[in-house]
Amino acid sequence: MKKFMLALLGITLAGGAAAQMKPEDAIKYRQSAYSAMSWSMGRIKTNVEGTYNKDEVIKAANVIQSLANSGMGALYLPGTDKGKGWEETRVKPEMFTNKELVGKVATDFNREANEMAKVAAAGDAAAAKAQFSKLSETCKSCHDDFKIKK
Amino acid sequence: MKKFMLALLGITLAGGAAAQMKPEDAIKYRQSAYSAMSWSMGRIKTNVEGTYNKDEVIKAANVIQSLANSGMGALYLPGTDKGKGWEETRVKPEMFTNKELVGKVATDFNREANEMAKVAAAGDAAAAKAQFSKLSETCKSCHDDFKIKK
Repeated sequence: MKKFMLALLGITLAGGAAAQMKPEDAIKYRQSAYSAMSWSMGRIKTNVEGTYNKDEVIKAANVIQSLANSGMGALYLPGTDKGKGWEETRVKPEMFTNKELVGKVATDFNREANEMAKVAAAGDAAAAKAQFSKLSETCKSCHDDFKIKK
Repeated sequence: MKKFMLALLGITLAGGAAAQMKPEDAIKYRQSAYSAMSWSMGRIKTNVEGTYNKDEVIKAANVIQSLANSGMGALYLPGTDKGKGWEETRVKPEMFTNKELVGKVATDFNREANEMAKVAAAGDAAAAKAQFSKLSETCKSCHDDFKIKK
């Protein structure tokens, strides 16, 4: 019973911590994380299409990997389907309702992001180019499903 | 001579890639990276001050570490001392002139961010709290030197 109460308290505290985050901050943080990933994708693109610099690609791939594994799902709080962070959110309602598809795109993205970091560390330009293409597909797929086009 | 010419070409290409980034994008990317770090620092704070969740702290510390090592200096392009990314930049002119101090705060931050990730992986809550404090000091120090207060 004590264990159950502690577990319950744990949930309450976690819930409390999440509740303390303002919706506009949650939206701002996720926009920021995606923007940092966009910067990093651009860096990898420049390298695989031009002069390949192993260190540049490692740095960029590590940023994407860390954000892919950061648990950004926590930033999709109830009440953040509309609202402004840095700008008005472009998330589609399906992000909050289609758990199955969200799970699929998240899993695909995480897998390819982890693989990108692995391939970057190995330093082969052709392999990095191929993996970058696979990773880009998972970005595009998620945008198609869950991001409102401008 | 050929080697020299290729090296020169490399520099030109790198310069070209950097030149292709619009100043407003560079400002937006660095604001985004700092905001993702702010989210992550908040997560660690919640954990070291409340119920400690090892995985949460690892995820957050890895984001900070990857961004600390990402080479964000490249986002302080000439012409980005003023201008708007997500919002008007709050960088002080000293960021572009006091190379020595920039180097010092960057080195301090990187060292403590790498140590934070190491301590997080080990999973000791007290050690994480102590390291979080050290890391926070390097954030504050850089803000004092290079960020205009609101």
